[in-house]
Amino acid sequence: MTVSKAIDWKRKDLVGLQDLEVAEIETVLDTAAGFKTAGSGQIRTVSALEGRTLVNFFVEPSTRTRVSFELAAHRLSADVVNMTASASSLTKGETLKDTALNLEALKADMIVMRHSSAGAARFLADRLEASVINAGDGAHEHPTQALLDLFTIRERKGRLAGLRVGIVGDILFSRVARSNIFALARLGAKVTLVGPPTLVPREFEALGVEISTDLDAVLPELDVINLLRIQHERQQKEHFPGLGEYTAIFGLTKARAERLREDCLIMHPGPINRGVEIDSDVADSGRSVILEQVTNGLAVRMAVLYLCDQARVAAGAR
Amino acid sequence: MTVSKAIDWKRKDLVGLQDLEVAEIETVLDTAAGFKTAGSGQIRTVSALEGRTLVNFFVEPSTRTRVSFELAAHRLSADVVNMTASASSLTKGETLKDTALNLEALKADMIVMRHSSAGAARFLADRLEASVINAGDGAHEHPTQALLDLFTIRERKGRLAGLRVGIVGDILFSRVARSNIFALARLGAKVTLVGPPTLVPREFEALGVEISTDLDAVLPELDVINLLRIQHERQQKEHFPGLGEYTAIFGLTKARAERLREDCLIMHPGPINRGVEIDSDVADSGRSVILEQVTNGLAVRMAVLYLCDQARVAAGAR
Amino acid sequence: MTVSKAIDWKRKDLVGLQDLEVAEIETVLDTAAGFKTAGSGQIRTVSALEGRTLVNFFVEPSTRTRVSFELAAHRLSADVVNMTASASSLTKGETLKDTALNLEALKADMIVMRHSSAGAARFLADRLEASVINAGDGAHEHPTQALLDLFTIRERKGRLAGLRVGIVGDILFSRVARSNIFALARLGAKVTLVGPPTLVPREFEALGVEISTDLDAVLPELDVINLLRIQHERQQKEHFPGLGEYTAIFGLTKARAERLREDCLIMHPGPINRGVEIDSDVADSGRSVILEQVTNGLAVRMAVLYLCDQARVAAGAR
Repeated sequence: MTVSKAIDWKRKDLVGLQDLEVAEIETVLDTAAGFKTAGSGQIRTVSALEGRTLVNFFVEPSTRTRVSFELAAHRLSADVVNMTASASSLTKGETLKDTALNLEALKADMIVMRHSSAGAARFLADRLEASVINAGDGAHEHPTQALLDLFTIRERKGRLAGLRVGIVGDILFSRVARSNIFALARLGAKVTLVGPPTLVPREFEALGVEISTDLDAVLPELDVINLLRIQHERQQKEHFPGLGEYTAIFGLTKARAERLREDCLIMHPGPINRGVEIDSDVADSGRSVILEQVTNGLAVRMAVLYLCDQARVAAGAR
Repeated sequence: MTVSKAIDWKRKDLVGLQDLEVAEIETVLDTAAGFKTAGSGQIRTVSALEGRTLVNFFVEPSTRTRVSFELAAHRLSADVVNMTASASSLTKGETLKDTALNLEALKADMIVMRHSSAGAARFLADRLEASVINAGDGAHEHPTQALLDLFTIRERKGRLAGLRVGIVGDILFSRVARSNIFALARLGAKVTLVGPPTLVPREFEALGVEISTDLDAVLPELDVINLLRIQHERQQKEHFPGLGEYTAIFGLTKARAERLREDCLIMHPGPINRGVEIDSDVADSGRSVILEQVTNGLAVRMAVLYLCDQARVAAGAR
Repeated sequence: MTVSKAIDWKRKDLVGLQDLEVAEIETVLDTAAGFKTAGSGQIRTVSALEGRTLVNFFVEPSTRTRVSFELAAHRLSADVVNMTASASSLTKGETLKDTALNLEALKADMIVMRHSSAGAARFLADRLEASVINAGDGAHEHPTQALLDLFTIRERKGRLAGLRVGIVGDILFSRVARSNIFALARLGAKVTLVGPPTLVPREFEALGVEISTDLDAVLPELDVINLLRIQHERQQKEHFPGLGEYTAIFGLTKARAERLREDCLIMHPGPINRGVEIDSDVADSGRSVILEQVTNGLAVRMAVLYLCDQARVAAGAR
């Protein structure tokens, strides 16, 4: 199902969505749709990446993203090796570059990396023949999360262009928001960022989005509302009001959910803080597609792994 | 080999042994016997669970049980993903329910869970379409451990009914004891619990077992003696005498082992504390089947995974 | 490609290189050469160890060696289970012997072990039917590291006999050095150990090597220079000068590298401390084969796993 579209994808890496063309994003989404359909039957494993080795290299912990990539790789018949930072040579003072060169010397075909530093995935991608997939680099990008968000919206709404998408919360430090902003803008959605001024600085307007501090005013117009996780353990006092105050002003409470359009999708990258950025019942309600996002993440990651591998092999064959 | 018996197994989950019927327990043991025979040849891997994904979700650490399930899954050609608590989203405050729903959204077919809270496996099993296998929940049940104990006894003795089985040690906090008590009683074995009154309260008599504080009196009558591990790091002072005192009164010393019947099986769920609950030479003696228990655990876990998967698929096909 | 040579290999284990005959070492290197050639094509996975279970049992952490063995096992189609010390029953006070017997009872075919105690691999190998591969035991041996060093030298130089190999650094505590010394001497290379007298004691001369404290004097004669990692976090003050002083006297600086023969190979077991035992540019220079060593490690470990498995099966079949 992916043959006709794969010609639009020439990248061995997926570092971010900022530079992706419309055709590229659509290629990922179409390929993922194929994998999702194929995966709903009894035979869910395909041999596309048989004999390939994927290294999950997580310098910052993340069980859900790691597990999602690991499952996606298994579905494609790739071998998976997990490496975490605390166990890795990085603790012995080795540089990121040396670790990367070693992974390549070990003939890893694909490296899925999460790292606390913005730019880490790009750094690796530029130095390695292996495919590098960014699973989150600092506050920079988290492209597969945004792609699964796009996939979910497109599957539900049939389109992205013209939709009004609200992203609520700590935009400043969110790689999920950044990747979403880049891709949604590219595909013609109208994005409104909502949050306290300290977390949604005016500079974001340069990315072609609207900014608001008034969630209640924005609510009725939204086709999609994406609530970011409040990482309260990380918040600094100068940026963040108290949790209770945050919920009162920016939480998707029951009262606010009633003012959403009936067909508004409620999204969240997870893990959710029930009762903080989203009311518990609202998270479980019919308009919530939070668990669909997780399911779609599997198909999207399969697509990304498949396309990047194809492109890498094609480039090497030249 | 399992076709004729599998019709007696309708459960997608194995949460505990308390509710299992005789036919169900025997189905597991017979299926395990088939896998054990098959596994002793050169070709040990079967494709029964090819394409299935098993998640080992261990919120409480346990290398041996995790490894045993992982090996059992490999033998059945399933893919395995490991998740541990410290690495999981639980550390970010996500609820168990949300973690479970996410695993299901990721299309995990089977979840093997160890958890420090009694009832955790039941909680998951009731909420998920995936099969949930309890690998130990608090002080509640550890069903596959008890099933491998039963398997070992039945293989050695040819039967369970009428045998006298002594279980010695910290019964109060032992999920292994609880699961054994339920299943042994169901299959007609006569169980005697032995230990200090603080660790073997009278309430257990309601489960149809005898209670004794005098190991020496019980010893000569036993067909099987199952020595529980003294988790001395966990014992509270009010429940537990000193280690030396425990060994003197309840340890299977050389002198006591000589008073056992010649064909009495010596069992232990491991890991053993040599010189505490069991003398080192006794643990290595001919009557000890401690390592056989480990080997049988592999076959029993294969059987449980296989049967639960079959039942889940059959239910879904309806 | 390995059939004709495998008859020279009768060992189910690889514990160290001290006792290996020339024909045995050459069998490993030749087998590895076959795997390296096979692995450079698109089809890199062979089914040689299909259905076999390898347990990576690392009581001392080491990501790179663990990953290398894991990848080698995947290439041979073996199943891999990882166990680390902190997670293992060893933390519950179980003895190494009991852990090993349990792994065997779980039908592990091969155990790759790293352990902080010299002799741990031998201890296991003598007690288990499973193949035991030493991935480093205390300051004793690290045979696969030395074999990949030999492989790299042989591949580059066409021979080992007669070459002059310098090993520089903390010889006293280095299992890498020890394994290299044994095998290089056996194959007719002339080894010179270089380092401060506290780290290169005179006793090593009994192994048939030369000893020097003057790197500058040795440099021009070397065909190969192997720089050991300075594990400065482990060094005790009485053995070790300051880092800066070490670099000044024993570091392979740019100035020193210029005094090496043009065809001298620069080796390092990794991870490198750039600017300490080796200058950063020198590590990346054309004479450096550090990353080739990593690549060759994969082929060498495949060969060791394959040969030991063959020998174990052949012995069992008798």
